[in-house]
Amino acid sequence: MVQYSAKLDSAFGALADPTRRGILERLGRSDAAISDLAKAFGITLTGIKKHVGVLETAGLVTTEKVGRVRRCSLGPRRLDDETAWIAAYRRMLEGRHDRLGEFLERTREKR
Amino acid sequence: MVQYSAKLDSAFGALADPTRRGILERLGRSDAAISDLAKAFGITLTGIKKHVGVLETAGLVTTEKVGRVRRCSLGPRRLDDETAWIAAYRRMLEGRHDRLGEFLERTREKR
Repeated sequence: MVQYSAKLDSAFGALADPTRRGILERLGRSDAAISDLAKAFGITLTGIKKHVGVLETAGLVTTEKVGRVRRCSLGPRRLDDETAWIAAYRRMLEGRHDRLGEFLERTREKR
Repeated sequence: MVQYSAKLDSAFGALADPTRRGILERLGRSDAAISDLAKAFGITLTGIKKHVGVLETAGLVTTEKVGRVRRCSLGPRRLDDETAWIAAYRRMLEGRHDRLGEFLERTREKR
């Protein structure tokens, strides 16, 4: 997992904020201008630009200047590595749980 | 998802660091003393305590003082809400993809 380390850091960091998760959910429905996002979340343009910047650095959002409007859309990253890390972690937890189950089973048989 | 907001913030924040993800992977294999973790990750006791503190606040790690040793183990939380959020997000992305596919299909039929 080492080569994904910096990507995981920035993506999980980006997800650690309710407004940024909200922006991703919103952009999942359709692309939006920065100003629309500011209105939707009731925060300043400066505030929303900061959040979009964090999401852009993490590769979860792309922005493009169209005339005087900056449009935001999802991608190019799609939380694939983050899903893989969490899935691997949960498989490990389940494995541990299975081994605990086997241990308890063996212990019971000895009684 | 609002009621899980603070939990998601702290859990995703906790995952946004390679040492903290490493500690979770390590504790998935077996419980460990703080001093063992410091040795395993080659960082100071103060440094490892800070990371374990973040994981403990997020509910991902529990610590218990046993004599002079502070033992760390996983839980009580297991990334269930984080998995659910990411899964919901990906379902939305796939739905969007399907809708795009349907749109392209319809467009093709019109040609």
